[in-house]
Amino acid sequence: MERKLRMGMYGGGQGAFIGAIHRAAALMDNRIELVCGCFSSRPEVSLASGREYFLPDDRIYTTFEEMIEREAALPEDLRMDFLSIVTPNALHFDPAMMALDYGFDVVMDKPITFSLEEAHRLKEKVTQTGRLLALTHAYAAYPAILEARDRIAKGALGKIRKIYVEYTQGWLSRRVELQPGSNAAWRTDPLRAGKAGCMGDIGVHALQMAEMVSGLRCVALCADVTTFAQGRLLDDDGAALLRFEKGASGVLIATQVACGEENNFTLRIYGEKGGLEWAQMEPNSLYLKWEDRPMEVVRVGNGYLGPAAKSHTRGPEGHPEGFIEAFANIYTNFARAVLARRNGTEPDPQWLDFPGVEEGLRGMQFIETVITSGQDDFHKWTPWIE
Amino acid sequence: MERKLRMGMYGGGQGAFIGAIHRAAALMDNRIELVCGCFSSRPEVSLASGREYFLPDDRIYTTFEEMIEREAALPEDLRMDFLSIVTPNALHFDPAMMALDYGFDVVMDKPITFSLEEAHRLKEKVTQTGRLLALTHAYAAYPAILEARDRIAKGALGKIRKIYVEYTQGWLSRRVELQPGSNAAWRTDPLRAGKAGCMGDIGVHALQMAEMVSGLRCVALCADVTTFAQGRLLDDDGAALLRFEKGASGVLIATQVACGEENNFTLRIYGEKGGLEWAQMEPNSLYLKWEDRPMEVVRVGNGYLGPAAKSHTRGPEGHPEGFIEAFANIYTNFARAVLARRNGTEPDPQWLDFPGVEEGLRGMQFIETVITSGQDDFHKWTPWIE
Amino acid sequence: MERKLRMGMYGGGQGAFIGAIHRAAALMDNRIELVCGCFSSRPEVSLASGREYFLPDDRIYTTFEEMIEREAALPEDLRMDFLSIVTPNALHFDPAMMALDYGFDVVMDKPITFSLEEAHRLKEKVTQTGRLLALTHAYAAYPAILEARDRIAKGALGKIRKIYVEYTQGWLSRRVELQPGSNAAWRTDPLRAGKAGCMGDIGVHALQMAEMVSGLRCVALCADVTTFAQGRLLDDDGAALLRFEKGASGVLIATQVACGEENNFTLRIYGEKGGLEWAQMEPNSLYLKWEDRPMEVVRVGNGYLGPAAKSHTRGPEGHPEGFIEAFANIYTNFARAVLARRNGTEPDPQWLDFPGVEEGLRGMQFIETVITSGQDDFHKWTPWIE
Amino acid sequence: MERKLRMGMYGGGQGAFIGAIHRAAALMDNRIELVCGCFSSRPEVSLASGREYFLPDDRIYTTFEEMIEREAALPEDLRMDFLSIVTPNALHFDPAMMALDYGFDVVMDKPITFSLEEAHRLKEKVTQTGRLLALTHAYAAYPAILEARDRIAKGALGKIRKIYVEYTQGWLSRRVELQPGSNAAWRTDPLRAGKAGCMGDIGVHALQMAEMVSGLRCVALCADVTTFAQGRLLDDDGAALLRFEKGASGVLIATQVACGEENNFTLRIYGEKGGLEWAQMEPNSLYLKWEDRPMEVVRVGNGYLGPAAKSHTRGPEGHPEGFIEAFANIYTNFARAVLARRNGTEPDPQWLDFPGVEEGLRGMQFIETVITSGQDDFHKWTPWIE
Repeated sequence: MERKLRMGMYGGGQGAFIGAIHRAAALMDNRIELVCGCFSSRPEVSLASGREYFLPDDRIYTTFEEMIEREAALPEDLRMDFLSIVTPNALHFDPAMMALDYGFDVVMDKPITFSLEEAHRLKEKVTQTGRLLALTHAYAAYPAILEARDRIAKGALGKIRKIYVEYTQGWLSRRVELQPGSNAAWRTDPLRAGKAGCMGDIGVHALQMAEMVSGLRCVALCADVTTFAQGRLLDDDGAALLRFEKGASGVLIATQVACGEENNFTLRIYGEKGGLEWAQMEPNSLYLKWEDRPMEVVRVGNGYLGPAAKSHTRGPEGHPEGFIEAFANIYTNFARAVLARRNGTEPDPQWLDFPGVEEGLRGMQFIETVITSGQDDFHKWTPWIE
Repeated sequence: MERKLRMGMYGGGQGAFIGAIHRAAALMDNRIELVCGCFSSRPEVSLASGREYFLPDDRIYTTFEEMIEREAALPEDLRMDFLSIVTPNALHFDPAMMALDYGFDVVMDKPITFSLEEAHRLKEKVTQTGRLLALTHAYAAYPAILEARDRIAKGALGKIRKIYVEYTQGWLSRRVELQPGSNAAWRTDPLRAGKAGCMGDIGVHALQMAEMVSGLRCVALCADVTTFAQGRLLDDDGAALLRFEKGASGVLIATQVACGEENNFTLRIYGEKGGLEWAQMEPNSLYLKWEDRPMEVVRVGNGYLGPAAKSHTRGPEGHPEGFIEAFANIYTNFARAVLARRNGTEPDPQWLDFPGVEEGLRGMQFIETVITSGQDDFHKWTPWIE
Repeated sequence: MERKLRMGMYGGGQGAFIGAIHRAAALMDNRIELVCGCFSSRPEVSLASGREYFLPDDRIYTTFEEMIEREAALPEDLRMDFLSIVTPNALHFDPAMMALDYGFDVVMDKPITFSLEEAHRLKEKVTQTGRLLALTHAYAAYPAILEARDRIAKGALGKIRKIYVEYTQGWLSRRVELQPGSNAAWRTDPLRAGKAGCMGDIGVHALQMAEMVSGLRCVALCADVTTFAQGRLLDDDGAALLRFEKGASGVLIATQVACGEENNFTLRIYGEKGGLEWAQMEPNSLYLKWEDRPMEVVRVGNGYLGPAAKSHTRGPEGHPEGFIEAFANIYTNFARAVLARRNGTEPDPQWLDFPGVEEGLRGMQFIETVITSGQDDFHKWTPWIE
Repeated sequence: MERKLRMGMYGGGQGAFIGAIHRAAALMDNRIELVCGCFSSRPEVSLASGREYFLPDDRIYTTFEEMIEREAALPEDLRMDFLSIVTPNALHFDPAMMALDYGFDVVMDKPITFSLEEAHRLKEKVTQTGRLLALTHAYAAYPAILEARDRIAKGALGKIRKIYVEYTQGWLSRRVELQPGSNAAWRTDPLRAGKAGCMGDIGVHALQMAEMVSGLRCVALCADVTTFAQGRLLDDDGAALLRFEKGASGVLIATQVACGEENNFTLRIYGEKGGLEWAQMEPNSLYLKWEDRPMEVVRVGNGYLGPAAKSHTRGPEGHPEGFIEAFANIYTNFARAVLARRNGTEPDPQWLDFPGVEEGLRGMQFIETVITSGQDDFHKWTPWIE
């Protein structure tokens, strides 16, 4: 039976940037409704937030435990279907585990957990419960990225040789985390963010995209990981030489002290027959470079695109879609897949085309590997830590 | 009292591109819910569409008259608050007039009506009923455009001299309107689109943006309006020399036969002290050019922007927003303004920052003027037809 | 016999921008040497300039008449082969006529003459004397432009429909001509520049390029020609609707008051099968747009280019060449063609691939037509004035 | 006394790409004349080339020894002033040493010598003879690069933190060196190129630019150096993590197997207050990024530039200059400095603003360091090898 999927949210109270993005993404394709939430650890903020989001008071909760228990006790046609977790990293694991145990599907932001060990346990839990888990590596859901991945998978570039991925931001050039209410506060706090700062916040995006689009796994790396802002406890900058399966190699750059850069995430991959380039800030173009013919500019919305790029676009060519639409692609696929399962049918495989616990685990392994390498000034290559 | 605003929709059945965009735009900011609709002139399509949008059967209607009458008869806390009209031009006027008469506010797509005369009557009706009417000149709601308008209004460029506005598309290079189900069918049909094809579909956007951003009204023009595709009954191409108030002049280009162009809408305005440039396909940048210092690239999401640009952006710098977000800016402002009025309060002036019936009337006058000029190969300047 | 061609120069004294460019262009390909000149109407400036250019005093002249006469009297293996005329428009005709009469070939800057009548007489003289005349429409010699012309000639875009050509500068936003030594002084002076200011200075470039690349002649136009800077005696701004042979139409924009623009010369041409775009400020890329496949970025220096683009480039791909190299393409072709003739052989046709007196005449006709139309606010279309 | 400087050339016979560029660069500013040369190791090619360049047979030589000896024996007002060496790396050292010994100044292409040891000896020779030596790191002479260097030196970006330099080409994706006459043949041959392939050909450019613009020296690096094309004997790809003086760090990427890339050399530098970006393929723009105000696009040719950028540009804003003009900047500065010295005066310091033997030595040290690091898979950081 077709119906909207019911979402509960953990985190995302008033003023939280990423929570608002998650809600917009969940709602915009008209397949999901927000039915409940615990939006803050402070009860009065949770309540005020829930009311601002037009929820009835009895669906606004004080703790995630309360939310999960009380939602589970509601009649099936009322209770939330899935929990969206948009809290700082340290608050991912417990609600995700509990939600899965109570039969809820889960959407969560990256990095998936606070520690690698948690990621392993969460993966086990997903396997054991058979529930769906979507990880909002939203950039991975841009249609141009899906097109890039699918073309490489079909061999358009030939055997892959080089993968350059860069994610440069400048917003942490100064210690903005000291300003009240700053989004940077938990990101630079080892107790809330985990072992990594910059590498956990944006490095994982870079690694995920490099692996997903190239179809190759990183097997070893050599990193220089740094903190430039005096007094900051976690890394705010780094770079790594990468080695991939099948002889490919590359470079990963992630920094949050490239003063003046906004959200400059670019990916370039070269094979024996050609190369491709993509840039997040103008995400609707994909540049294909060839050995002996002109560069092509593949543009989202055109009839010549493959099925994945086509089905993840809303408007025709020349009508730019942005990062909220990319987020929405994950939510909408997830919603369709969950609903199919709830209706006892097998989801269309393309609805399952979203990052999940496996990508989450790779991300935590990356954090472990890159930070280990960054702390080691003696040995060159650090093999991938599993 | 805070609540979501309830939207009814006229048009926008399954497969209609622009209806889906309107729904996404209305829903994404979590201030509007879709409660009813008449989605097609074919009852079975309307019903299937409404069900796909998760509406109960008793809120899915067969005609707009039925919808308006029956919604008006519902209790105040259930019935729709406003009607969104996303049908071809010939079907704008009657539902808008009736909705206003029944006390509903109205959102409509451009051009506002089928004829100039209808636009005058609709304007009167709005004045008389005191209801709100938003016209979805969505490009006008891009934050970079609001920034451009506000900077010019403050004199950043000095006295304005030149206004160049271009809207080039290539999708009507061939007679695609002959393909079944083509979006081009009604756009190229004088009985459904009105007096103009290209000029009504995209020329009105160009004129609206030129006037809004420059703050100057066009007073006369000299146009060459053409049909390139053989057998097509309306114009698919044109250009006009423009004269504005206060001695400014410019050029408007609108074509749908620029083969290979997507949705290439650009605006350039020059004053005595500098110039600005904006391009719809990369809408988050605004280029400011100066006489004696480097060009500046103003980017959406940054702290240095003015209040209008800031309040119409959802994410931080470098997180691209696109045309659905621009649409949503109109819907969300409209929703806030309508709700304020329903609650008996005066809307915040910034919530009234959306195009309305006045812009709609200017658009119809433009169509009248440009088509008149285009048909006249003898006289150079056609004064603005009111 | 292979030897360097010997150039005399008229104009281009110390500090004159365009003279220095001509010399660099003439010298860089090692086929031309500067042997004499009359560099200024002021004898002491001519002398000082000639010495700065390392000429012996007896080859530095005071008037063009003296130069032509005395050079003609020198032994054949010493005297100049051709005269390069880089003076203001009013000083083009007489030296060109005399040089041709004395058996010298001629290079001249655009517009070719002060008046249309002079252009007709000069054309006759060229025909009568059988000498070569190159007109330095240098932009026409960019390799990407040659590629564009040749692809269109071969039908790559199908039947041409639209031609948009724009040349926007901002340097005359104020009356800079009042500053001592300004390059703008003669350009804004009817006694030295002729009937047109902006249209003669840059409008002729736009028209020439539109016709050359499209292969179509303009047959009528409707212009708005304006002077924005108070007190200036010639136009500094304008635009025209254009009609071409074979049903094509277009728009020409030329302005020198687009404050903040540098030398923004762009050309876009669309046919039934695709379109192309080129921009002078990044001249090594040519954008080809297609109906149903990705845009291609054709880049100078690559193996896939046609013969004209290839033979007019010096370096491999990715090594940018600029406007001096474009100028040099004209000089070098001219030098090879003149030398072939001096040696009694027929020049390779590709060496004759430079603009000449015919393009010069078209330019003067354009000035006549566009200024006539611009002064006429009553009649819409002005047929091409021959 | 003002006169043209007389150049002899070693290498650069018919068909040699870089020799033609050197000649165009030397000639275009009308300060240098080509008077003699030994253009090939094959006497008949040298002779044919010299004739093509319009030299008399008695100034066309068979060996560099012959050239230097016989030129030295000519009267002072005839003989060459300097020798330009444009041969493969293995043929740099001997002619440079001999020319210096005979009192000639020297221009040479990079990398300066075949081995580090030769570079040390050449530096000593320059010191001992007191002659001038220019190294054609031509990219370093682009006006936008001089502007970048000077702004950083004045503190515009604050303390420098990050330096990213990339040079990606694709032309060696296949073994094109096996094609007859390929420019790639000597570049991939250890006997002619030296210890490094890609790192010697383009890596040295990257390192030189990083150091020159930032004003910081590299002190250690960690490299991955690779050969992708099977059977090739030298590296065709690599990347390195860099550490600089004063706590800055960065990444250097140099590859010739990025299939589809042309000559994609980019530099990005970030300090505590802002960042800058430059790209060789569009060399006339310099992007300045700031923490809290819009990015500025500094453009060559404008009045707001510093003295070095201004004096190394020929045309006004918007008239693109390219890599030959950059080359010419080095030749022209060198010519002025040499002539001043010949005339017994001190050269204007700005004429000495060209790369020389010190940069050449740094380049050879870089090759030594990066290849050493690339061959060592165990130790992370290789300190700079002097």
